[in-house]
Amino acid sequence: MSDTAGKPITCKAAVAWEAGKDLVIEDVEVGVPQAGEVRIKIDYTGVCHTDAYMLSGKDPEGAFPVIAGHEGAGIVESVGEGVTSVAVGDTVVALYTPECKECKFCKSGKTNLCGKIRATQGKGVMPDGTSRFKCKGKDLLHFMGTSTFSQYTVVADISCVKVTDKAPTDRTCLLGCGITTGYGAAVISAGNGGIEEGATVAVFGAGCVGLSVIQGAVARKASKIIVVDVNDSKKEWSFKFGATDFVNPTSKTDVKEGETIQSKLVEMTDGGLDYTFDCTGNVNVMRSALEACHKGWGESIIIGVAAAGQEISTRPFQLVTGRRWKGCAFGGVKGRTQMGGLVDDYMNGKLKVDEFITHRQNLGGINQAFHDMHDGDCIRCVVDMKKV
Amino acid sequence: MSDTAGKPITCKAAVAWEAGKDLVIEDVEVGVPQAGEVRIKIDYTGVCHTDAYMLSGKDPEGAFPVIAGHEGAGIVESVGEGVTSVAVGDTVVALYTPECKECKFCKSGKTNLCGKIRATQGKGVMPDGTSRFKCKGKDLLHFMGTSTFSQYTVVADISCVKVTDKAPTDRTCLLGCGITTGYGAAVISAGNGGIEEGATVAVFGAGCVGLSVIQGAVARKASKIIVVDVNDSKKEWSFKFGATDFVNPTSKTDVKEGETIQSKLVEMTDGGLDYTFDCTGNVNVMRSALEACHKGWGESIIIGVAAAGQEISTRPFQLVTGRRWKGCAFGGVKGRTQMGGLVDDYMNGKLKVDEFITHRQNLGGINQAFHDMHDGDCIRCVVDMKKV
Repeated sequence: MSDTAGKPITCKAAVAWEAGKDLVIEDVEVGVPQAGEVRIKIDYTGVCHTDAYMLSGKDPEGAFPVIAGHEGAGIVESVGEGVTSVAVGDTVVALYTPECKECKFCKSGKTNLCGKIRATQGKGVMPDGTSRFKCKGKDLLHFMGTSTFSQYTVVADISCVKVTDKAPTDRTCLLGCGITTGYGAAVISAGNGGIEEGATVAVFGAGCVGLSVIQGAVARKASKIIVVDVNDSKKEWSFKFGATDFVNPTSKTDVKEGETIQSKLVEMTDGGLDYTFDCTGNVNVMRSALEACHKGWGESIIIGVAAAGQEISTRPFQLVTGRRWKGCAFGGVKGRTQMGGLVDDYMNGKLKVDEFITHRQNLGGINQAFHDMHDGDCIRCVVDMKKV
Repeated sequence: MSDTAGKPITCKAAVAWEAGKDLVIEDVEVGVPQAGEVRIKIDYTGVCHTDAYMLSGKDPEGAFPVIAGHEGAGIVESVGEGVTSVAVGDTVVALYTPECKECKFCKSGKTNLCGKIRATQGKGVMPDGTSRFKCKGKDLLHFMGTSTFSQYTVVADISCVKVTDKAPTDRTCLLGCGITTGYGAAVISAGNGGIEEGATVAVFGAGCVGLSVIQGAVARKASKIIVVDVNDSKKEWSFKFGATDFVNPTSKTDVKEGETIQSKLVEMTDGGLDYTFDCTGNVNVMRSALEACHKGWGESIIIGVAAAGQEISTRPFQLVTGRRWKGCAFGGVKGRTQMGGLVDDYMNGKLKVDEFITHRQNLGGINQAFHDMHDGDCIRCVVDMKKV
């Protein structure tokens, strides 16, 4: 037992008091973990577009005040009653896609989505309907069941996974979202169990997720990996991760007058791609990604999160002639079952993680981390939660 | 050799001189089959919505004058040079989805779409770019590579398949489109190799195609087969074919105020369907069919053909949370490889065909067949081509 166990902990956290405003570093009181809950000392957290989207106020389901953050790793400080899957001192990664192993979804063998705490997680509270965060006399909401922008957080035991303490937490935190999302989409969600050897692949958007799709495609020995991005600086990044081609759809050289990005890709691949991945969240890009697929079997996987109210469209003929449209969350990865394997891949040099870290901040610099994220040269900023 | 071999044949055919007008029974000259072509004496043909759509002039790719019809069976009268897959006297079914067994598509093992004659078929001509039909000094266009509304027709050898002569051609003609399309969608295209035992299924639209999806779902032992149709008279038809439930989305009793058809179906199935099939061609119905799928794994298959320019839409979140959208043509059935098995199933009593025939006409009554088709009590009208 740690000597803080059983007592509330006061620590620093980045609080979002209202939409569209900078986060404020506050002293927050983090409650004692209740039955089935785990209190984690967060070492490091990533900063992700999903946090930015919610904090901007554009997400109609976003509610304030809240502690955001969902890409975190740290050490278990204490556990509530009945928790057996992790213990005090364990190194853990937070999971915004939990895995209870008991619900209809988990038992189906067909999806990584878990239904057990979906309703309360969506409302920003713990499974018993209450919050573990207090600040200035007010309850703060949780976010994505993780709230990693606090030095201590409380999560459901199904919302974290023990990983080896040999893997540094400033790297494993990134396995909590972007890298796993892209890599999993390529090696788990695509097709029936991932991209097949020799397949042709196009990746729309070469951020953290897109670059990780490339990693997955390389691991599966795809024969062609075409990256589509409006930012030419992503060309070097893409090739570094193993892409074979790069197309800038806004370049008049790459996509000529009268061509579309989909017609260009169809031409480059003698009929279209076997797999395409949208890593942008832009619904027009999602359409292009589908229509760039090969007739008869090409499959497009939506990974990006679109803005509220946005819809995808296409002519149904695209599907009747054999293209397939699907998507995945967290790459289709079952967090508690499969995270260990991803960490092993990282430790064995099979999965790049270090390369994604272009920026670092202390907790006190978290607003700068969000500003940096919108620059093309930032892939991931890791925030050191121990330093304010 | 038949004594007509090597010479043009003059016979009766239903000619569409222009869009939106009744067909006219004319004497047409049917040319000698060229290399790789087969001339067929058509015994019987079905009349299908795809014919009606093209003939209406709403199909922007429709061109006139033309001989329509694509659901036909008959006897090979003569063959062109190099034809080895069928011989004079063989009983054959016409295939609007050909199968060459040699092209990239056929060899992929992933689709029933064949690329070999796609371009010329789409233009209404034979693979050499010319027509085999003449009337009043004019060339007539072919339709879907089949043109079964003529007493004799010429098709590419890859556009017909030999079947047992023990199966009556007034039944097997219907395997040339509707029945195969629906049955194949259920037992071949859905999932990975068809609906699994115990799966829940919803079928939107209980015409020939929808009723055949039910047959496929029954063959695969689906646990629940819900039919959705705005026409209450389809309830009895649906149950006769093995449906377990029927919902009329326009009925205030079936779908209450504030419910949608998708929310109703989700409620009826504790979370949504494993498989849904659109057999209507209505893009709004296609959306409902997708959104009625179970989160995490539900798959919606578009079979119906939408009107030109119509688009399907949904929120990408539907796909990111695990629903899959796809489609198929001719049920995913490879005509020359798999038709024999379907005919066997019919002969062995495993596949209902007779039950679909609600109306019959002679060639001279073909316009009435189109009028009848739009009545709710007509499933299929079979036209006897031997009688004018």
